Amino acid sequence: MTRRARALLALSLVAEAGDPRLVTWRERCDPQELWRAVVRGGAEVPDRWHACAADAERSIDALVRRAESVGARWIVPGTPAWPVALDDLDHLDGVGQMAGSPLGLWVRGGGDLTTIAAAPVAVVGARTNTTYGAECASDIAADCADQGHAVVSGAAFGIDACAHRGALMGGGPTVAVMACGVDVDYPKPHAALLRRIAEEGLVISEFPPGSEPQKHRFLVRNRIIAALSVGVVVVEAAERSGSLNTLNWADQLGRTTMVVPGPVTSQASGGTHRAVRDGKAVLVTCGRDVLADTFGFVDDDAPPVGPAARRVWVRLGADPEPVERIAAVLRLGTVAVHRALRELERHGVVVQEESRWRRRTPAAAGQDEVG
Amino acid sequence: MTRRARALLALSLVAEAGDPRLVTWRERCDPQELWRAVVRGGAEVPDRWHACAADAERSIDALVRRAESVGARWIVPGTPAWPVALDDLDHLDGVGQMAGSPLGLWVRGGGDLTTIAAAPVAVVGARTNTTYGAECASDIAADCADQGHAVVSGAAFGIDACAHRGALMGGGPTVAVMACGVDVDYPKPHAALLRRIAEEGLVISEFPPGSEPQKHRFLVRNRIIAALSVGVVVVEAAERSGSLNTLNWADQLGRTTMVVPGPVTSQASGGTHRAVRDGKAVLVTCGRDVLADTFGFVDDDAPPVGPAARRVWVRLGADPEPVERIAAVLRLGTVAVHRALRELERHGVVVQEESRWRRRTPAAAGQDEVG
Repeated sequence: MTRRARALLALSLVAEAGDPRLVTWRERCDPQELWRAVVRGGAEVPDRWHACAADAERSIDALVRRAESVGARWIVPGTPAWPVALDDLDHLDGVGQMAGSPLGLWVRGGGDLTTIAAAPVAVVGARTNTTYGAECASDIAADCADQGHAVVSGAAFGIDACAHRGALMGGGPTVAVMACGVDVDYPKPHAALLRRIAEEGLVISEFPPGSEPQKHRFLVRNRIIAALSVGVVVVEAAERSGSLNTLNWADQLGRTTMVVPGPVTSQASGGTHRAVRDGKAVLVTCGRDVLADTFGFVDDDAPPVGPAARRVWVRLGADPEPVERIAAVLRLGTVAVHRALRELERHGVVVQEESRWRRRTPAAAGQDEVG
Repeated sequence: MTRRARALLALSLVAEAGDPRLVTWRERCDPQELWRAVVRGGAEVPDRWHACAADAERSIDALVRRAESVGARWIVPGTPAWPVALDDLDHLDGVGQMAGSPLGLWVRGGGDLTTIAAAPVAVVGARTNTTYGAECASDIAADCADQGHAVVSGAAFGIDACAHRGALMGGGPTVAVMACGVDVDYPKPHAALLRRIAEEGLVISEFPPGSEPQKHRFLVRNRIIAALSVGVVVVEAAERSGSLNTLNWADQLGRTTMVVPGPVTSQASGGTHRAVRDGKAVLVTCGRDVLADTFGFVDDDAPPVGPAARRVWVRLGADPEPVERIAAVLRLGTVAVHRALRELERHGVVVQEESRWRRRTPAAAGQDEVG
């Protein structure tokens, strides 16, 4: 672990996640300086941070080992492993008293978060859902996964679990953003589901391994679900549901905000209908609507490839583009783009021209073969 | 019957309702002139009109008698009995090949159409509805009726019937706009419902007594439902449902267009969800939403008065206004406004100051008593 990553980890153990003071501090100095200031103490440093500093430093190695025992690692901003979409959180006024991007994330699972979460859709909703809501969440998640988009959710009872299960059914990866440590099975009955998510996708958290969920952690966690995703769908939410908090974050972040309607006689759809009436979200009825509203269109010709390759595919047109440009526009590494292009090439849907790539259009296929 | 009314009646027997040529003709000359031209025949007059003219003239008296036998009369534009809202149809491009306000209306029932339809809401929808849709239509209609708004619908099976029944349950008047004669029980099993509507509200039609419904008559009838109403709610409609045609007319007429959402798994809500997604209608979940969206607010302090009095109540503020001005703004007769004000006065909610009227605000009530 770099010293910078270690300093960010140490900071994450003393400062409350989403503390708006972190945004100001991080603008002012680099993480190592900041951590040295915390250790030193002084008028500028919150007392609580300084008071916990020594304990924090001592616990780091144990936490890293604990994470490793469940196949988890600590990733930090400014590295290739970091989804830059999360940095959008630093340019917000925040929701409630919370603000800012996480100091880092614990990531449990084999994949790369930036690849898996290349163009994800969040599907969230009520814990106390109806069977109708379960069906909607599962179908929408499966459709998104089927089109190569990771499904992000909160692993809670109800809609969240249906979203993860739907994505797994759809054969796509799914990301669970936890309000507790990535090694904590919360809720307990979801232990097997979480294990499966970690195997096929990722379980992530800004809270250190072993952390128990606390009420305010769910709210602060919601900002990560929203920031990580290109679009957020709320399937069922009563008025004043926590999922509307996620929708609110997504709205502030300029993400596509969507809700699934339901019977007006169902309390579980009260909050979603309200969101449409208040202009906070658009109405979607199926995965196709979700993809159309989030990505502008549904590509029926898209090849059955992984999310990064799909994202590259969506980007590519008839005019050839260099790998570096594709990488920059999509905020992906050039290695990831190369890998994606090879995958698309195997499906015969892209063509290389010198060092540039473009789509092979069905009409031009014959010509491509000859040229 | 005036000669003008008789000429309009005669014209309605030769020209197809909603024929766009009528709009041009009526701008050019008055109904009697127009009828004389039809009788005379000539290059300018459609052959079919002229060919039917003699038969039409002969049948008028019998039609009027037939109407009278069910308590119906013929009303025409430009008279106090005519709802001027219908004239908005003359300033439209039309939907499909139809355009224009009706030449007149057959009105069955004891009440006055302009009073009953002072501020009506249309509640329409699928013939093949679900029990969920039935519940929604009935509840919304009852809420509108309860607040003094007449409910307009098409007396069809399904949602329409639920809307009329809901309004009757809510104690308010309801108006059935028919695609057949006002004396024709269509559909047959609605004979009792239509009788009840005529007793408590009105059954109206632009088609002469005895006319059977024809497919295109339903579409042309829909423009009257839309034009007569301040807002139109579609409760359930599959994609390509006829109710969406009514919504389309309402949209073109600048009426408030609303739909009730339902389960996305229900085909009966496919068209309503589509309308929200296409920006053709706003989502409403209850009568309160409908009234708020249509009239700008729901007045919980509104007295339990009839629709005309309610409309006057909505108009009145703290500044006294003369009766003539209220009548002009609301497009009501001064006699109707006087009657409404007396009704409101009996409820103690309005105050007369010389020849002007204003609301009595709860705060100023004591002062009003003394002053």
